[in-house]
Amino acid sequence: MIKVAVIGFGVVGSGVVEMIHANREILKKNTGEDIEIAKILDIRTFPDSPYGQLVTPNAEEIFGNPEIDIVVETMGGIKFAYDYSVRALKAKKHLVTSNKEMVASHGPELLKLAKENNVRYMFEASVGGGIPIIRPLSLCLAGNNITEIFGILNGTTNYILTQMQREGKSFEEALAEAQQKGYAEANPTADIEGFDALRKIAILSCVAYNKFVDYNNLECQGITQITSEDMKFAEELGYSIKLIGYSRNDTNGVLARVSPMLIPQSNLLSDVNDVFNAVMVNGDFIGETMFYGKGAGKEATASAVVGDVVDIIKNPKSEGKSLWNETAKEFTGVNELKTRFFIRYEEKGNTKAFISDEICENELEAFLKRQNINVKNTIRVMRSVD
Amino acid sequence: MIKVAVIGFGVVGSGVVEMIHANREILKKNTGEDIEIAKILDIRTFPDSPYGQLVTPNAEEIFGNPEIDIVVETMGGIKFAYDYSVRALKAKKHLVTSNKEMVASHGPELLKLAKENNVRYMFEASVGGGIPIIRPLSLCLAGNNITEIFGILNGTTNYILTQMQREGKSFEEALAEAQQKGYAEANPTADIEGFDALRKIAILSCVAYNKFVDYNNLECQGITQITSEDMKFAEELGYSIKLIGYSRNDTNGVLARVSPMLIPQSNLLSDVNDVFNAVMVNGDFIGETMFYGKGAGKEATASAVVGDVVDIIKNPKSEGKSLWNETAKEFTGVNELKTRFFIRYEEKGNTKAFISDEICENELEAFLKRQNINVKNTIRVMRSVD
Repeated sequence: MIKVAVIGFGVVGSGVVEMIHANREILKKNTGEDIEIAKILDIRTFPDSPYGQLVTPNAEEIFGNPEIDIVVETMGGIKFAYDYSVRALKAKKHLVTSNKEMVASHGPELLKLAKENNVRYMFEASVGGGIPIIRPLSLCLAGNNITEIFGILNGTTNYILTQMQREGKSFEEALAEAQQKGYAEANPTADIEGFDALRKIAILSCVAYNKFVDYNNLECQGITQITSEDMKFAEELGYSIKLIGYSRNDTNGVLARVSPMLIPQSNLLSDVNDVFNAVMVNGDFIGETMFYGKGAGKEATASAVVGDVVDIIKNPKSEGKSLWNETAKEFTGVNELKTRFFIRYEEKGNTKAFISDEICENELEAFLKRQNINVKNTIRVMRSVD
Repeated sequence: MIKVAVIGFGVVGSGVVEMIHANREILKKNTGEDIEIAKILDIRTFPDSPYGQLVTPNAEEIFGNPEIDIVVETMGGIKFAYDYSVRALKAKKHLVTSNKEMVASHGPELLKLAKENNVRYMFEASVGGGIPIIRPLSLCLAGNNITEIFGILNGTTNYILTQMQREGKSFEEALAEAQQKGYAEANPTADIEGFDALRKIAILSCVAYNKFVDYNNLECQGITQITSEDMKFAEELGYSIKLIGYSRNDTNGVLARVSPMLIPQSNLLSDVNDVFNAVMVNGDFIGETMFYGKGAGKEATASAVVGDVVDIIKNPKSEGKSLWNETAKEFTGVNELKTRFFIRYEEKGNTKAFISDEICENELEAFLKRQNINVKNTIRVMRSVD
């Protein structure tokens, strides 16, 4: 019998509890163990939930209970979740989280603390919702020199961009609709400004390069400047516009950032629509590989959390040095960074657009000046796959 | 120091040796261990290879050497590989294989033998080349009730179909070109008749449903009957034709088979071209997720093998009950199995095609008779994703 405690009985936390109950037999078959939800920590009460009697506001009932093997943290944020995470690991309980802010900010420290206490700290659910991506990167592709990762990491912005492309809606209209459907929050800043995707590409970079990549140092541009005109011209030129988390690692150091990009229609990412996410990974032996699925939502995120719980039961003592205790070298290759740009401009009251040849990114401004045009927007273009 | 022996120094075996040498530092960082190729078993000699001095024809140098921790079997086939596999496990060496025939035929027995000897038997490379799919299914999605798996599992046939679709080539022309480029073997039967894909969908079914699914009992139809006319009409109707390994599991039992299918252009699989593979998985919590990448080739397959080696080093004692010691219940729901069919026929010297409504698969023949048309080909249609 494996006893699990859940911290935070919100959307993801309740999904985890429901999944462990619904698929009890499958889990027993796959792990050889009965898994029981022993306690749920939340300051609220849930009199109408079938799991209401498991809820307690008293953290000591979890951290002081030696029978609890695994703690699942699904409350999000840093303020309280950080203390609970540290307490769980110090109490020698395995810790599973869906909290990307926590992993991106305190990953190295919590991984080290887990190792010192001979338990595991796992966070498959922190990136890409239910999509298996952390474990494939850290285990399946572990023999590769991973050179590049890029993908659609935020479902809210992908829904908005899909609506703009398909229905010709403006950004504001598409955002309002996403809010109405519950795909965007009342305060959508973290999504539409790219901050959510930025934390995720930072985490993927840490896992792939086995070094700490601090999201605070990275360039981040959201989708608020994208217009339906950009969409229209991009489509005519054979591209979709997507918000892309991009990362590469070479002798120039690690470059990671979030920005909108034009994706050629020959690239599978251009067909990833609505709230779906997808991540492309390039490694020296694997070549190009892609992972696709639901990037958010109660059930999909629960699937990733429960996958980590299964992994812990099967492999409680996983060894290795994946601790990100080295900090990634800052990127120094900006003078070599060549990109094609989509450039939309106005001429005699008419809107036009073209795609430039490859230019050094730090020479874009000078390039635009030389064109002597009334530039309205510039967006990076993803290279075509050869 | 972890010592690895490789059995069979062919395409995949040499890829594994080269990868472990090329990425020695990355592997040490990810596992905390130096990995050394200790011996290579092959009856041939390789005087020009930098690893030639590691090659021996004497199996006892591997199985009798207590310092060798992990055996990688990349020789393929059953005849010799089966004996070597059994000897490796009985000598308490972890076993990693890329041999799909072995896994599909002797998986339950070898998994049991590995468990009895307290070692691991791993086969990520047996399906989808480098694509991480076995571990995501068995670990990341282990909390899900997996209801359906389908995908493009054979690169040779996908290359042929892509050439037929893009260039309007006949099957015979496209096959000849694939042979010329080294994508198809001189005797292409195992690929074009679907036998290779059939073993792979059987293995995926075993892993996903945790029961043994014997490929010998499954329906298998290849691509030799597909004409460029089928391609043309399918495309006009909004579909690509792909060779699909399909599998589902419900109260009616396990249905698994290989056959050509029309894939709607809204489904990402329709854009998986050339020698690439992709696998869609449906689970009750994850929803639909897809894994994409190079389905074959020296480097990509080596990537999967080395990922298994890393997993073994990190988790030498992985626990669990995934032994397929139950045999899957034979599918009994054929009377409920409703599918739409693409039907090509001739009328007054003209070729025409249409897509039927959903009909019971076992009533197709009667349906065609009622139409009173000169039927030339029928191909199943994949349902649209809602």
